[in-house]
Amino acid sequence: MKTKKINIGILGCGVVGTGVAKLLMEKAELLESRIGVPVNLKYVADLDTTTDRGISFPEGVFISDAGTVINDPDINIIVELIGGTKVAKDFTLKALENGKHVVTANKALIASFGNIIVQTAREKELDFAFEASVGGCMPVIKSIRESLVANRIDSMTGILNGTCNYILTKITSEGCPFDEALKEAQEKGYAEADPFLDIEGHDSAHKLAILTSLAYGMEINLDDIYVEGISSITPMDIQNAREFGYSIKLLAISKNHSDSVEARVHPTMIPESHPLAHVNGSMNAVTIDGDATGRTMLYGAGAGMMPTASAVVSDIADIARNIMTGSKKRMPILGSPQKNIKKIPIMPFTETSTCYYIRLEASDHPGVLSKISGILGDQGISIKSVHQKGRRTNGTVPVVMITHKAMEKEIQKSLAEIASLDAIPEKPVVIRIEEE
Amino acid sequence: MKTKKINIGILGCGVVGTGVAKLLMEKAELLESRIGVPVNLKYVADLDTTTDRGISFPEGVFISDAGTVINDPDINIIVELIGGTKVAKDFTLKALENGKHVVTANKALIASFGNIIVQTAREKELDFAFEASVGGCMPVIKSIRESLVANRIDSMTGILNGTCNYILTKITSEGCPFDEALKEAQEKGYAEADPFLDIEGHDSAHKLAILTSLAYGMEINLDDIYVEGISSITPMDIQNAREFGYSIKLLAISKNHSDSVEARVHPTMIPESHPLAHVNGSMNAVTIDGDATGRTMLYGAGAGMMPTASAVVSDIADIARNIMTGSKKRMPILGSPQKNIKKIPIMPFTETSTCYYIRLEASDHPGVLSKISGILGDQGISIKSVHQKGRRTNGTVPVVMITHKAMEKEIQKSLAEIASLDAIPEKPVVIRIEEE
Repeated sequence: MKTKKINIGILGCGVVGTGVAKLLMEKAELLESRIGVPVNLKYVADLDTTTDRGISFPEGVFISDAGTVINDPDINIIVELIGGTKVAKDFTLKALENGKHVVTANKALIASFGNIIVQTAREKELDFAFEASVGGCMPVIKSIRESLVANRIDSMTGILNGTCNYILTKITSEGCPFDEALKEAQEKGYAEADPFLDIEGHDSAHKLAILTSLAYGMEINLDDIYVEGISSITPMDIQNAREFGYSIKLLAISKNHSDSVEARVHPTMIPESHPLAHVNGSMNAVTIDGDATGRTMLYGAGAGMMPTASAVVSDIADIARNIMTGSKKRMPILGSPQKNIKKIPIMPFTETSTCYYIRLEASDHPGVLSKISGILGDQGISIKSVHQKGRRTNGTVPVVMITHKAMEKEIQKSLAEIASLDAIPEKPVVIRIEEE
Repeated sequence: MKTKKINIGILGCGVVGTGVAKLLMEKAELLESRIGVPVNLKYVADLDTTTDRGISFPEGVFISDAGTVINDPDINIIVELIGGTKVAKDFTLKALENGKHVVTANKALIASFGNIIVQTAREKELDFAFEASVGGCMPVIKSIRESLVANRIDSMTGILNGTCNYILTKITSEGCPFDEALKEAQEKGYAEADPFLDIEGHDSAHKLAILTSLAYGMEINLDDIYVEGISSITPMDIQNAREFGYSIKLLAISKNHSDSVEARVHPTMIPESHPLAHVNGSMNAVTIDGDATGRTMLYGAGAGMMPTASAVVSDIADIARNIMTGSKKRMPILGSPQKNIKKIPIMPFTETSTCYYIRLEASDHPGVLSKISGILGDQGISIKSVHQKGRRTNGTVPVVMITHKAMEKEIQKSLAEIASLDAIPEKPVVIRIEEE
């Protein structure tokens, strides 16, 4: 049976919803020529139908009632772009129960409720697609699930939040403090009015939870990912990093240890030779290390109306092709059939190992440095280099140390001990280093 | 009807053929878990069955007769990895006529005979897949055809030949002459014994012909692509480029002018801020500018046994999924159905415009520079900067000029005139500059 037309209903007409509606309307001819069947925007539902979106919808397309869309028997694909995890979850599950394929860009939804949504879609033999949820227009989900199918993925490292990358790039290039960089990011529209999810790393963690599940064939697990944001990064640390040949980026890192995986989000120093070191401004990128491919990297706009909409429409096109050719369950939603999706634990953060950058203010007394290195040595941590950076102020000198590889719990224990010394008036600053 | 097993026959057991055989055998379990059906390597055919490939094939798999593979009714997918365009073409067409899907990594074959092969596959409702033919493991074909489906692609710029990139990187980092860098590339196995296709740019042109067809929805056209290799690049030009803030890369460039396209391969100076400027060694990368996505980039190993094999197996997996779900003609081979594939002409190279780097030796006489700038000025070419680089030798001084944007035919005309001056003993060196 040949399908004559694919009907789309969009829920939520915010930035991305508007972009998807635009693409579906303005690129209708191009899309039909490439997909082989018309993709028809039947409805866009949003509670606010009065604010001008800069599109003139045909009569009856722009409506306020999501229920009309979800319950319309002609709708083939529902595009959930409401955001948040409450209404979005209810609508997504309802749409699947009504036999609609669902496309979303909602990382928070998938990171929090992906397992139940995937299960529902699978039982109903429906597609649930979310390329736009990670890395905007970068085809990272398609790459992991399809292009890297013959690879054991060993690790992934991503700059997955454009707001943070914009802020860090600005501090790096202009030496301005964090607050000023954030303010400009907000003025330019990169950062939300409430930037908490972005700058504290939670948005990156949502995305990492999705990638980690796909890459290693495991259930989605957000809760066990370590998350640390960029709000305490100072121009001084960025400057010091540069002198050591590093850039500071907010990285989402995961590593495959077979029985367990590492998954963590934190500001990270990476060598200038690392391809991610040159990813600047609001751009996103992710390196994926596969056992057959070696390192590959994807780079692109991680957010924004049209880049994100482009990824949403690529999912719509894939599903339209499935509908057209009558293929059901062509691509397992998490990359492997359910019976092969394992519950692989995320390793406790304290068990992970990296090198460390430690910056502290130390009283300018004899013996302080030897005391500090003794504390580190007691935990088996060896120091690669120690530098006095900058001038003495108020009787203290700034000291920067780079350690060899050490375990997080050893560093935490050492730092607690160091912080308790009288000679150390302030809590030391710690930034993890990922060497190649 | 559920397919119980997908049978694969590989033709050609060279480097990539061996890699594909390895992946299919060693990753059989992983692949079955991801694809949902066993992918069985039934045959590997090669005229030479005696040289050890480092794999122990089960009895009866490694044979010398390709006909046995092509004519076996149980074979679902033929993997053509013979190379060259003669036998490979015959076998590919025969396989399609016998109802087999075909996967290849053979860029020369597709660039030269892609149109007829695609037509044959289309008529037989079979898949013809060639992800591995461009950029090794980078999923560039999948990205153009699937991920960027909602985009008008405006331009693509690629480092598509690892041998050339390795050589240019070596000259850049060590200042060694071209011949020495080539020799090392050969010793390390990056360059072929006969490196002509690589270093003279033809391999990149094959790949550009494929990408250009896919991106702009046009028939494959190799003949009209301008091709210039890297054999005349000197350490001096690379050093000069660096002083102006440029890297020299062998770039495959195509631009979409709607009624015509630009497609050219030549050594190119790109600003250090361009993401391709940092792609070093034997790595490949391609930037794609879409009207919705903005710039995206893919990066990865462009050659080598396992990276290329990984891409071949990704095509096998896609086709296996199509067979399994009974989907025919799910994805048009060139991205659009035949009726939408246009015969878009490639613009004559002389009509293209860029900025130019011109290096020449000029007699150290008064008035020479003013004569040269007069010749350029007569063609409407304005000079951005002129520098005397290095010392006077034998009465001549080396002069480097950077022009503003000019048309190729104007430059060629000017240079012919300049070369005919008595004051210019040697043919000037010209390298094109791509500004952002």
